[in-house]
Amino acid sequence: MSASSYTYLGPEGTFTEAALRTLPEAATRELVPMLSVPAALDAVRNGEAAAALVPIENSVEGGVTATLDELATGTPLMIYREVLLPIAFALLVRPGTALGDIKTVTGHPVAQPQVRNWLSAHLPDAVWESAASNADGARLVREGRYDAAFAGEFAAATYALEPLVTDIHDAQNAQTRFVLAGRPARPAARTGLDRTSVVVWLRDDHPGALMELLQEFAVRGVNLMRIESRPTGEGMGRYCFSVDCEGHISDRRVGEALMGLKRICPKVRFLGSYPRAGAAPDGMPEPRYGTSDGDFVTAAEWLARCQDGRA
Amino acid sequence: MSASSYTYLGPEGTFTEAALRTLPEAATRELVPMLSVPAALDAVRNGEAAAALVPIENSVEGGVTATLDELATGTPLMIYREVLLPIAFALLVRPGTALGDIKTVTGHPVAQPQVRNWLSAHLPDAVWESAASNADGARLVREGRYDAAFAGEFAAATYALEPLVTDIHDAQNAQTRFVLAGRPARPAARTGLDRTSVVVWLRDDHPGALMELLQEFAVRGVNLMRIESRPTGEGMGRYCFSVDCEGHISDRRVGEALMGLKRICPKVRFLGSYPRAGAAPDGMPEPRYGTSDGDFVTAAEWLARCQDGRA
Amino acid sequence: MSASSYTYLGPEGTFTEAALRTLPEAATRELVPMLSVPAALDAVRNGEAAAALVPIENSVEGGVTATLDELATGTPLMIYREVLLPIAFALLVRPGTALGDIKTVTGHPVAQPQVRNWLSAHLPDAVWESAASNADGARLVREGRYDAAFAGEFAAATYALEPLVTDIHDAQNAQTRFVLAGRPARPAARTGLDRTSVVVWLRDDHPGALMELLQEFAVRGVNLMRIESRPTGEGMGRYCFSVDCEGHISDRRVGEALMGLKRICPKVRFLGSYPRAGAAPDGMPEPRYGTSDGDFVTAAEWLARCQDGRA
Amino acid sequence: MSASSYTYLGPEGTFTEAALRTLPEAATRELVPMLSVPAALDAVRNGEAAAALVPIENSVEGGVTATLDELATGTPLMIYREVLLPIAFALLVRPGTALGDIKTVTGHPVAQPQVRNWLSAHLPDAVWESAASNADGARLVREGRYDAAFAGEFAAATYALEPLVTDIHDAQNAQTRFVLAGRPARPAARTGLDRTSVVVWLRDDHPGALMELLQEFAVRGVNLMRIESRPTGEGMGRYCFSVDCEGHISDRRVGEALMGLKRICPKVRFLGSYPRAGAAPDGMPEPRYGTSDGDFVTAAEWLARCQDGRA
Repeated sequence: MSASSYTYLGPEGTFTEAALRTLPEAATRELVPMLSVPAALDAVRNGEAAAALVPIENSVEGGVTATLDELATGTPLMIYREVLLPIAFALLVRPGTALGDIKTVTGHPVAQPQVRNWLSAHLPDAVWESAASNADGARLVREGRYDAAFAGEFAAATYALEPLVTDIHDAQNAQTRFVLAGRPARPAARTGLDRTSVVVWLRDDHPGALMELLQEFAVRGVNLMRIESRPTGEGMGRYCFSVDCEGHISDRRVGEALMGLKRICPKVRFLGSYPRAGAAPDGMPEPRYGTSDGDFVTAAEWLARCQDGRA
Repeated sequence: MSASSYTYLGPEGTFTEAALRTLPEAATRELVPMLSVPAALDAVRNGEAAAALVPIENSVEGGVTATLDELATGTPLMIYREVLLPIAFALLVRPGTALGDIKTVTGHPVAQPQVRNWLSAHLPDAVWESAASNADGARLVREGRYDAAFAGEFAAATYALEPLVTDIHDAQNAQTRFVLAGRPARPAARTGLDRTSVVVWLRDDHPGALMELLQEFAVRGVNLMRIESRPTGEGMGRYCFSVDCEGHISDRRVGEALMGLKRICPKVRFLGSYPRAGAAPDGMPEPRYGTSDGDFVTAAEWLARCQDGRA
Repeated sequence: MSASSYTYLGPEGTFTEAALRTLPEAATRELVPMLSVPAALDAVRNGEAAAALVPIENSVEGGVTATLDELATGTPLMIYREVLLPIAFALLVRPGTALGDIKTVTGHPVAQPQVRNWLSAHLPDAVWESAASNADGARLVREGRYDAAFAGEFAAATYALEPLVTDIHDAQNAQTRFVLAGRPARPAARTGLDRTSVVVWLRDDHPGALMELLQEFAVRGVNLMRIESRPTGEGMGRYCFSVDCEGHISDRRVGEALMGLKRICPKVRFLGSYPRAGAAPDGMPEPRYGTSDGDFVTAAEWLARCQDGRA
Repeated sequence: MSASSYTYLGPEGTFTEAALRTLPEAATRELVPMLSVPAALDAVRNGEAAAALVPIENSVEGGVTATLDELATGTPLMIYREVLLPIAFALLVRPGTALGDIKTVTGHPVAQPQVRNWLSAHLPDAVWESAASNADGARLVREGRYDAAFAGEFAAATYALEPLVTDIHDAQNAQTRFVLAGRPARPAARTGLDRTSVVVWLRDDHPGALMELLQEFAVRGVNLMRIESRPTGEGMGRYCFSVDCEGHISDRRVGEALMGLKRICPKVRFLGSYPRAGAAPDGMPEPRYGTSDGDFVTAAEWLARCQDGRA
């Protein structure tokens, strides 16, 4: 592994690898599969890799807690960009296997709820056992331990298997969002369609602290995109919040909201501002009345004039 | 009248004059009584006087609408400081008048509700007629038009009358607050116990606009001291708000709240930051958690580090 | 005066009388002018009259503090209905007087700011002196004390004067709102376009109390129409709030908001629900999502099912 | 399995079983291990069991998504009560195994982050592989597939293993919260120290919807205990919220807050009110000013008097 390589949640053949390969810069770098999210990120922390691609959220299964927790604690990392990948499974088998032959199936635990309906419709009697990853499931099928594995169709070649059925997904529009995380750096330039991520700890025993957090965004017209509570590990009922909002740290409204969080919360970790993957439903959104950069500049100039007695 | 004079709501002998004479700088300036609040303030606008002292609020009768409306509209003025004066009336009569002789009494309309109970107890049959000012009432008693006038005891000598009864006030702790208004200038230095005044117009037909206004203060921990609605003159149901908050425009939390108002409101008029008259109940108040100047500076430094990739 | 009579703020010839005469029921009742708002209302409190019409708000001059304070304190009264009257002044003179003859003008103090511009344009040298009412000013012109009075054109006949100029009003759309107040009774039936009035006292020394008050309305989708602070008389900086909201006490959202106020405030005085005068800009307004009576009923039924284990 | 039995997340020897055995009623019922949370809950839905005990939250690993999602969707279930269990692991081995012999360890994926530090300190070279459950890990050790398993000490006897090390837990005060879920029924009686659970869907594309949700609680003084977002499965960026608040559905403030949610949200699922496990830090908490049942009753009586004209 070279310092300019990218790690990813492996092994080879995972959806994460497929997501990574959608990035143009991936073509020119060494891509190194790691066996866990912490391992992929620690390689970046240690300087062994330039960045790591890890899943952070699935539209069916929700947040990937290993990723959320790794980004929230330990040596700080920053999200450089995100990748959205549609998720559809293929049922991989050893060449020659027919549907009627399948007694055991495997896959990552997160895959199971995404194919449960398909399974009960087409393989009602097959026994499911979880594997460490979808790709690992494919490997175990190759080795003969299971009859079939759910994985990305692209994993078939790697493990010398055949896709018996493709495009399996119980939910419509299932997607996984991946983030490319690196060491702290200047955020990517504002595109006008950005996402900003932070982790926020609230004051203990302060009822209403969560609403105060949301008000710091709301009063400046900054929309939330995602909020997820995670235990702090200090005991039942103690949470921090992983939050994504619309906009870029260089948008005045976002910057002022972040400073508001910083003031009222004992701890805030900035995780980055980066372009949103996927087109906006209606192109560039208009900021709420009074919250554009121009509005902030005008107000600051007015305040200066008031302070100088020139208003 | 010289350009360095102070005007005040006259005629001579009003409570406003008494309030003005509590200011050290009044001893060295020409003090010019004017017949109305607009006249006193227009002399300042025209450069004929340096400042004007006018009543703005009475603890029994409420806001002085002429003052509120003059400050809200026309050529901008600024409040330099405030004076609090306890209000107690004397019943002024021509020498020789006894209580039993009094058939008619006069005074400013605002005085009446402050002495109503005393009147019905001690002069139940006396007829009240309003005068243009308390001092003017005294003048009319001097001229024989009425038998007695309610006014400040200090007005007796001016009009060659006698205080027959003193310290008359239905309400305990009645006070009037006066403001010294001048042309826009750099606000007085922050004392730590300051008041900031603004007039704010809300967006039309935007339900919730008043709450949004209050939230700009609340989210930054700025307490309101007074809020008064005034018609804009554009038709029934259209109001602007005269607002006083704790703190000084140079307090970061106040400055950011004012910029917030400026952004979300079509029009904001800054009326000044000035020392609060009257001791604070408990000395210098502690700002709410996360809203001190130090908290703002820390947050701004943190934001800069985040933007530079050094957080 | 009979117990079924209506009192009003007199004397005869005031705008209040004109407003009262727009009410159909006024045609069949004795209408009794009183010399002050308290006198008009006390006659109702004492059972000498059935109701009193008094001005409560002017679109130029704002709230009528005597009315606001009388309704807020003392023996409770209730607003039965409201009347909106466009305000335009006539300049009343003794027959034969020409504009050039006028040296002195009079009128109610509230009239002056509404005709100030007209005066300085047409009678720049005339001296203004205030009268106890517009009608009283007309009487004083009749008696020769002043040359002209601003009053309603309808007052000319009563005082044997002539309207020299009519339709004088500096502000466009100047209106006064009057309320017909009586002893507490069942509110008038809901019309769908109603106004509800309350007076609310906040907890002392509880920063944010005003915002909590507004939130009780906002969270239930009840729009405010008017909010006015009035001193409680207990010292500078102590206020109560006179509040009008859209809707009727029998609207579920309004009833729940009022109960919320009752719970969080040490004192609330219900002043009535009554039809709004003046057409709604766009007919019957739609209540905000989730706040119709039907929504409240559905939610209450759902709660009952949850409590019974049938949800 | 009889209709009066309790299912639980098995196999035998799990922490869930240990939690279930702390319930007095478990002593008299058949306890049936199931292989997954859905299986345990479906047995209840089908009438094959009276209730199911499943983990819902761990103080280190966070929410148990299978449980959250099962309770949020499908045939409705209700939480009857909760159990808190301190989590400490034992390292189970076949009799005769010494620490130095251990090359492979297993356990549930959720166990791994709770013992990671211990592992790297005491068994830095051991290879971890996940098992379907802690108990299943123990079984696999028994069968010789791994050298050691992390599980509850109570599982040793079931699988004829020995606890080589006990009381292993990286985090202080690690706890898991379990819920006993059954078919919808009247909630348990209010104890004064209760928890109420709901799942709430927000209106699409309505910025601020989350804050409105929180305000329904806040305005009635109801404190949140937990809030967790879960994808709805309808696509990236679409979430519902699993929420626990303090109090019981029969507390007026809670009931009114729930009705508020029901009105403003397209869908709310009530999951139950039940006694809180674990002592309150300071005994019975005092409800916020104005939010006790007595305050609600007083306000309702006052509203009725207002509506009757008797206020």
